Amino acid sequence: MTALFRLDPRLAADTAVVTDWPLCRVLVMNDSRYPWLILVPRRANMIEIFDLEQGDRAELIDEIAKASARLKTWAHADKINVGALGNVVPQLHIHIVARKRDDPAGAAPIWGVGDPIKYADQDLTRVVSELTAAFK
Amino acid sequence: MTALFRLDPRLAADTAVVTDWPLCRVLVMNDSRYPWLILVPRRANMIEIFDLEQGDRAELIDEIAKASARLKTWAHADKINVGALGNVVPQLHIHIVARKRDDPAGAAPIWGVGDPIKYADQDLTRVVSELTAAFK
Repeated sequence: MTALFRLDPRLAADTAVVTDWPLCRVLVMNDSRYPWLILVPRRANMIEIFDLEQGDRAELIDEIAKASARLKTWAHADKINVGALGNVVPQLHIHIVARKRDDPAGAAPIWGVGDPIKYADQDLTRVVSELTAAFK
Repeated sequence: MTALFRLDPRLAADTAVVTDWPLCRVLVMNDSRYPWLILVPRRANMIEIFDLEQGDRAELIDEIAKASARLKTWAHADKINVGALGNVVPQLHIHIVARKRDDPAGAAPIWGVGDPIKYADQDLTRVVSELTAAFK
């Protein structure tokens, strides 16, 4: 029997679902400081990028490219940061973060800097709705 | 005329060359705190992953997977961190960092934490030699 994909409960708690693409579940971080997506390949027991089969890897980087381009446009960003860290949550997940020159982290990465500021409920609903339209 | 690839001088100053793979130049950061590689696609004027053509993207993620697996083995690491940031040096480059549970950054990312500690000359020569053998 093939093991079933199940989203890590910590990722689920910190995010809202935007959409499912062929490989990845697309999530938005509930952190109003940055437009910040998480892509999670819907495959069981993946930790490192090299755990994915070659076809899935090619699909992953195409979905990273698509998410990066669309997020950059949607957020009017200057630069996209991409990261696969997994120091806290081992399930393979890719951060896609829209950065602006004047954002709170400056030239530094955003991970581990300061604390998340959750969206107000109606703002999260609006962001998810806009991203779902832009990303489907 | 096709624009020629030229390694950003800041990346060149902070690294030593390990080898060239079909797409990327493989560099090692001159920072003895972490086993830390940089992959630079040898294409001119690339900033974001979505600037690469689809075939180059597929090659890039295969080279990321190969570098991650080999670095994890070589460094006896617990986890690999992968990042494409570009907040300081815009030329597209991918960090591949071997992490251990007891390393100085703990669960945090390594970027922007503390200052680099350069290898002694003979140590850098040894590291480059070992990596070149493991990565060619």
